[in-house]
Amino acid sequence: MAEDKTSSNQMWGGRFASGPAAIMEEINASIGFDKKLYAQDIRGSLAHAEMLAKQGIISAEDLKQITEGLNSIRAEIENGKFEFSRKLEDIHMNVEARLADQIGLAAKRLHTARSRNDQVALDFRLWVKEELVKVDAALTALISVFLARAEEHADTVMPGFTHLQTAQPVTFGHHCMAYVEMFGRDRSRVRDCIERMDESPIGAAALAGTPYPIDRHMTAKALGFREPTRNSIDTVSDRDFALEFLSLASICATHLSRLAEEIVIWSTPQFNFVRLSDSFSTGSSIMPQKKNPDAAELVRAKTGRINGSLIALLTVMKGLPLAYSKDMQEDKEQVFDAAESLELSLAAMAGMIGDMTINTASMRKAAGSGFSTATDLADWLVRELGLPFRDAHHVTGAAVAAAEKKGVDLAGLTLDELKAIHPEINDGVYAVLTVDASVASRKSYGGTAPDQVRFQIAEWKKRV
Amino acid sequence: MAEDKTSSNQMWGGRFASGPAAIMEEINASIGFDKKLYAQDIRGSLAHAEMLAKQGIISAEDLKQITEGLNSIRAEIENGKFEFSRKLEDIHMNVEARLADQIGLAAKRLHTARSRNDQVALDFRLWVKEELVKVDAALTALISVFLARAEEHADTVMPGFTHLQTAQPVTFGHHCMAYVEMFGRDRSRVRDCIERMDESPIGAAALAGTPYPIDRHMTAKALGFREPTRNSIDTVSDRDFALEFLSLASICATHLSRLAEEIVIWSTPQFNFVRLSDSFSTGSSIMPQKKNPDAAELVRAKTGRINGSLIALLTVMKGLPLAYSKDMQEDKEQVFDAAESLELSLAAMAGMIGDMTINTASMRKAAGSGFSTATDLADWLVRELGLPFRDAHHVTGAAVAAAEKKGVDLAGLTLDELKAIHPEINDGVYAVLTVDASVASRKSYGGTAPDQVRFQIAEWKKRV
Amino acid sequence: MAEDKTSSNQMWGGRFASGPAAIMEEINASIGFDKKLYAQDIRGSLAHAEMLAKQGIISAEDLKQITEGLNSIRAEIENGKFEFSRKLEDIHMNVEARLADQIGLAAKRLHTARSRNDQVALDFRLWVKEELVKVDAALTALISVFLARAEEHADTVMPGFTHLQTAQPVTFGHHCMAYVEMFGRDRSRVRDCIERMDESPIGAAALAGTPYPIDRHMTAKALGFREPTRNSIDTVSDRDFALEFLSLASICATHLSRLAEEIVIWSTPQFNFVRLSDSFSTGSSIMPQKKNPDAAELVRAKTGRINGSLIALLTVMKGLPLAYSKDMQEDKEQVFDAAESLELSLAAMAGMIGDMTINTASMRKAAGSGFSTATDLADWLVRELGLPFRDAHHVTGAAVAAAEKKGVDLAGLTLDELKAIHPEINDGVYAVLTVDASVASRKSYGGTAPDQVRFQIAEWKKRV
Amino acid sequence: MAEDKTSSNQMWGGRFASGPAAIMEEINASIGFDKKLYAQDIRGSLAHAEMLAKQGIISAEDLKQITEGLNSIRAEIENGKFEFSRKLEDIHMNVEARLADQIGLAAKRLHTARSRNDQVALDFRLWVKEELVKVDAALTALISVFLARAEEHADTVMPGFTHLQTAQPVTFGHHCMAYVEMFGRDRSRVRDCIERMDESPIGAAALAGTPYPIDRHMTAKALGFREPTRNSIDTVSDRDFALEFLSLASICATHLSRLAEEIVIWSTPQFNFVRLSDSFSTGSSIMPQKKNPDAAELVRAKTGRINGSLIALLTVMKGLPLAYSKDMQEDKEQVFDAAESLELSLAAMAGMIGDMTINTASMRKAAGSGFSTATDLADWLVRELGLPFRDAHHVTGAAVAAAEKKGVDLAGLTLDELKAIHPEINDGVYAVLTVDASVASRKSYGGTAPDQVRFQIAEWKKRV
Repeated sequence: MAEDKTSSNQMWGGRFASGPAAIMEEINASIGFDKKLYAQDIRGSLAHAEMLAKQGIISAEDLKQITEGLNSIRAEIENGKFEFSRKLEDIHMNVEARLADQIGLAAKRLHTARSRNDQVALDFRLWVKEELVKVDAALTALISVFLARAEEHADTVMPGFTHLQTAQPVTFGHHCMAYVEMFGRDRSRVRDCIERMDESPIGAAALAGTPYPIDRHMTAKALGFREPTRNSIDTVSDRDFALEFLSLASICATHLSRLAEEIVIWSTPQFNFVRLSDSFSTGSSIMPQKKNPDAAELVRAKTGRINGSLIALLTVMKGLPLAYSKDMQEDKEQVFDAAESLELSLAAMAGMIGDMTINTASMRKAAGSGFSTATDLADWLVRELGLPFRDAHHVTGAAVAAAEKKGVDLAGLTLDELKAIHPEINDGVYAVLTVDASVASRKSYGGTAPDQVRFQIAEWKKRV
Repeated sequence: MAEDKTSSNQMWGGRFASGPAAIMEEINASIGFDKKLYAQDIRGSLAHAEMLAKQGIISAEDLKQITEGLNSIRAEIENGKFEFSRKLEDIHMNVEARLADQIGLAAKRLHTARSRNDQVALDFRLWVKEELVKVDAALTALISVFLARAEEHADTVMPGFTHLQTAQPVTFGHHCMAYVEMFGRDRSRVRDCIERMDESPIGAAALAGTPYPIDRHMTAKALGFREPTRNSIDTVSDRDFALEFLSLASICATHLSRLAEEIVIWSTPQFNFVRLSDSFSTGSSIMPQKKNPDAAELVRAKTGRINGSLIALLTVMKGLPLAYSKDMQEDKEQVFDAAESLELSLAAMAGMIGDMTINTASMRKAAGSGFSTATDLADWLVRELGLPFRDAHHVTGAAVAAAEKKGVDLAGLTLDELKAIHPEINDGVYAVLTVDASVASRKSYGGTAPDQVRFQIAEWKKRV
Repeated sequence: MAEDKTSSNQMWGGRFASGPAAIMEEINASIGFDKKLYAQDIRGSLAHAEMLAKQGIISAEDLKQITEGLNSIRAEIENGKFEFSRKLEDIHMNVEARLADQIGLAAKRLHTARSRNDQVALDFRLWVKEELVKVDAALTALISVFLARAEEHADTVMPGFTHLQTAQPVTFGHHCMAYVEMFGRDRSRVRDCIERMDESPIGAAALAGTPYPIDRHMTAKALGFREPTRNSIDTVSDRDFALEFLSLASICATHLSRLAEEIVIWSTPQFNFVRLSDSFSTGSSIMPQKKNPDAAELVRAKTGRINGSLIALLTVMKGLPLAYSKDMQEDKEQVFDAAESLELSLAAMAGMIGDMTINTASMRKAAGSGFSTATDLADWLVRELGLPFRDAHHVTGAAVAAAEKKGVDLAGLTLDELKAIHPEINDGVYAVLTVDASVASRKSYGGTAPDQVRFQIAEWKKRV
Repeated sequence: MAEDKTSSNQMWGGRFASGPAAIMEEINASIGFDKKLYAQDIRGSLAHAEMLAKQGIISAEDLKQITEGLNSIRAEIENGKFEFSRKLEDIHMNVEARLADQIGLAAKRLHTARSRNDQVALDFRLWVKEELVKVDAALTALISVFLARAEEHADTVMPGFTHLQTAQPVTFGHHCMAYVEMFGRDRSRVRDCIERMDESPIGAAALAGTPYPIDRHMTAKALGFREPTRNSIDTVSDRDFALEFLSLASICATHLSRLAEEIVIWSTPQFNFVRLSDSFSTGSSIMPQKKNPDAAELVRAKTGRINGSLIALLTVMKGLPLAYSKDMQEDKEQVFDAAESLELSLAAMAGMIGDMTINTASMRKAAGSGFSTATDLADWLVRELGLPFRDAHHVTGAAVAAAEKKGVDLAGLTLDELKAIHPEINDGVYAVLTVDASVASRKSYGGTAPDQVRFQIAEWKKRV
């Protein structure tokens, strides 16, 4: 076997010239990414130590040394003086080893009644919870930007699209409020997730709990959790909070991608509905009219990235027997990456939406073209003349054909021309043929009428 | 161009011999799957008609005819007498056309102040809400099965695994309760989802609301929703409820896959921890000892299927401009398929877990092998003799080596043999060296001690 | 336990009222979808029987009976006379049981030296191979449609976009040829996949091979495979051919989604580049101008569906120990569904592209707006006047500003106006300022110059 | 608007305190990851410059300066002296700006007849092609390790599993060769991918080609490509080579995950089939018997990560209109990450498999238990006594029952005992009842008989 080993080592070759140890260290170490958890790790250790002391498991002197030692390590890390070692694998061992250097035996006692399995669960859960709070704030900020634009443009008429074809006139304010609803749901998901994961894992130990007389309610409270988890095996096996974070991030990113798509399309010379600020677009030194919506495209693309992270972690967790398996080490990079993409996308969108110029004239012109008020005419015929729908459709079709032939919109037909199509039509009809009239008429709850839009804005303002 | 058309038709060839119309009909029609929504469609129409009548938009006579007509159509469908037509594309048009056959003009008036866009949003949302209620019940049933098995086996000792290697003894009841926690979180996600999506879309019309004096609060209440949605554009664009359903289904399926994996492994002759009932396994006519855990394997596989549906709909919705786009028609099959897989998996698991035989002797034997109480020995040395951890580890290592040499477990060493390793060891140590003692000692909140497990069972019983 | 069983049965409740057997049958049976493989199953059995007879493992009389029996079963299935039974689980058992009804003992001998594990591998592989051949043909048909449109429009000028902003003029023919390249690569992937999976699994038996003196080369040849597989364990464990099919389908669907997106955008009144035929769009009874690109949207959406199937099967196969596991039964529905979506999408696209009207005037107008030839001006300054690039940019910027002020395109500036910007400019410059000149100048290999486009069309015609 | 802007800036708050510019720079810059492409970027520029000089587009003196400048920049980067700037966005601009510092005007001429769009396509394609060559080598190395182990264990008997239940005896060598087939297919996919993507993008320029008289065949050849791409729009829009890389990586990772799962299960004390070397497992300071298969678990988890990258890029590319969109910038990190995971997993597996100890005694014992030769008995009854299958099954079942009752395996029954079950059984039957006989009998092509396995090993050795 010894010979086999030599020759197979030679075969791995290349970058792994130094043999198995190098490969193992490279695939095994997590310090490259979990050092991001240093603050949570130290916070958790401080809470754990205080509890151990209060329960008489360690002495007051040990606690004092541990506290001072951990605080000084935090300072070292924050000042860039700390040397992370890949040999020590992860953030927990890096901190613990440094603490042992400083305070000796007391450092070893810190690890009483806990294990790396519940320690990593704690650190990561604290991080995710903090991130969720940040995402909540970023969503609230984006909602605020939309509320401001919606208020500003509660009367601005634009085409409402289905299939990207003009359907009926709506207001830009109403369109903005659609996004408020979406990001509002996202925020609601974030808050539910915080509520559900608000349980402290520390004290579950390796997987079975511990014989030490610990007080898990005390550490839970100290770390800002509602309560401790209820099952030690589940505690070290569970990554639901990460999966739920990635799920809600994917849905939120989907909303962002729809908005990004609209910005890209609306910024074309053909649509010309909005003009991005210089801050959020890139230009060309030759073509001064060119304004590439790079930021919107990148936000649209981040959706793929976040969906990828979700699928990655779902796949990792599939079929893992309880309790802890090393596979779960793959949880952090996916969440860190998705969180960064999501935060950045939310901030970029708040910036873009807040800064962009709305070309109200282009919007109004597009809203009025394409016989967009044909539905209003048909509705009027049903409502005012009592026509059955089928007849109303027929009359409307004839009116559209006449207008098309004359090269005008429906409101451009004279009353005589309309009467030629149906003799009972009267000049009351013109009240529904303009885009403003069309929009104003849709007063149903949640409809596009400016008063409705303003009502909903007022309601939402109470919630931000 | 005419010639081109002919020749290109010939090129599509094969199954699309009849040319463009056939392809278009095949890709466009949804009746093949959305007929599943017939009950929701009719219920929605009845509520809409009653509201129209109350608001004076249609007459009482119209309402009477519509109600009778819809009820008779529902009966036709449920009796298998209804002929679905692909030419009529979807369930809405199939029902509407049949209603027109029956009652003529009044049928046309039913469509006042609504459109297919809000109608499909309503039907699908009703369906998903009902499905969520079913999943809630199925999760509760599975939790009940686990609570019963946990109670039965609160004292049954088994190995607790990390990395699928024996780590420390736990109880099978404790292991069961880990799944109770998981499925409890799943149920909590289901309930949050119901709460969030509990808004009625009907009345949003095509996308802009309607000029008719409708009462959306009335229809919302009649259909069992908390309130109407607040933005008509969002209402017809939104499929968050479907995405959230698929997300929670994926997380729940991940839990099921972990359980399934354990059943597969535990059913091997090598582990022999459980024996599936004949109902949930398949045999072989030749090898009577063979019991294939087919149902567990299929449940494990359904995770892939449900994850696939989630990714499918996330991808479909990515980058869709508002409001309705036809892409969204792909929402239903994914959700229907995932719902069926999830319901079936939950029922199969409840069956398997409820029926399976627990080989307590095999579990106990495995729990006691591999020096699984070494941690308990080290803990005892720290706690009772005040050894620093490092020294305790050293002593424990020596004891394990001695036991290995002697071919016994740690409890098989005599007191003299133990004293030879460390003179202060006394016979109090035996109290922690057995698997029962080990398990009983882990009384920390959420730990594996039988009393802790029973306490948590009692708490959970209040919640089912 | 008996009581437990009763009560847990009651808990599964609902649709599974009949207890474990019903759930197990529902989750276990595959006949609902694998009956699609009946022709492959019978073909495989015929080839296997002939080989058994030739090797003397069964008698000539057995072969005769088996052949007649299988042929008559095929006829029954194709005439809709065959009654599929879910109790018999799958297509193999359904056919075998019917054969036993017909010919008794000889039917049992057919199963000599094979098992369901290699039989399902054979049937499914045959199906996938045939499907790949169909996809190859569908891709070739779509390429042909594009070649025809490219030839027709080799000179039709349109804007070339980056970031959906006008960049430089190109020809529509050149744009079409970009899709020819994409679908050409797809076809190449299809052919590689066929080549790689062209190995016969039959004869691997359950997983270990067989002691019977079978001739696997004979069955391989009879079934149209290049050769038999080389490892019996791999043969029954392998679903690479399905994964590779789904991978190439996902990449092809991605191409289709890009094309679909362009059709949706180009069909807006704002772009107005193309007009879909009535066959491939849906209209509105009220708004005669409205033409919804439903088919394009549905093709775009199918990408999500196919990606979902890919992820589903990758997830199913993850971490499965060798050899056959029941999880693998989930392979077929994913592939069947993706294949149907892909075939339908390819046919719909061939139809849409072949039928759609190209609005050459709109394209030309858009191509010429936005100073799309600014790059050409800069290039001319470098090339003809020897200006360094930085200076050329500066001059071009000034020219664009002057044109913008005058309200014309670059070619609308007089020579005097240009000389005022840079005195050495001469009237040779006009040759590069028009869109036609710009396009004609890009003669580099693979460039948009009509002659280049025609050259590539000619080359491609040799390959269809 | 100015005020709005200020207030919205305040809202983005937090880490983006410096406002839009900071967010835009953070989301837009790619230098953080694309600096990895420096060598490809410089190589591409050198080839482009030589071609420009040969075609007379730049002077020999320019070429000399450019060559010297680029070579010195490469040295700076490799010596860690180069300062990358995020303001300069990407690797192309970083290199170009530094070149301009060094050689002034000539640097600007380098960019003639190309653009960042074809430059990034070139750099990334070169990188992916080189990576594919590395993966090919890593697969070949892993195949070699398996061939060595297969040869060593061509006669080592182990249980062949289906559903993770013992099915029939096989050899470990045969099991190893199943992986050789899988990784062989992976290698074949890698080679097809190289072949398909072996086309040079440079010279496509922004998207339309260029009016300069460039020679794309010359640059293609200089950069080691088979030929130039044929369509400039496709060239800058295409990321098929990245998608295909990720697809084949996902399939390969699926194979690795199956192997990893087997190692994890086989390493349990319950199976005890293999023992990982110390290099590829982690231990515990307390439990000396514990050997966690961390490396195998991490390899299994990487599958999720790679699948995630595949889905990420598929989602990014979905629905992107031609030609270049900024979304495509997300391509590189996914591919870089997947490539690193794949290379590391392949190397770790080669190490693990090469080093691990095979517990042949455990394997043999497991192979012989569970009446694993029952199929052989049934086959013998059919073959030797001419029993119909149904009767053979019945007899075998009775024999198994008798053996079970007696507490022996089938070979443990005496001839009298067997004759009591069926009088015609003779002592020839014992030749098929041992695991060695069972294995030796399966001589069919691709079967598990040691000679067959050795034949296939010999064939494969010709291909590595």
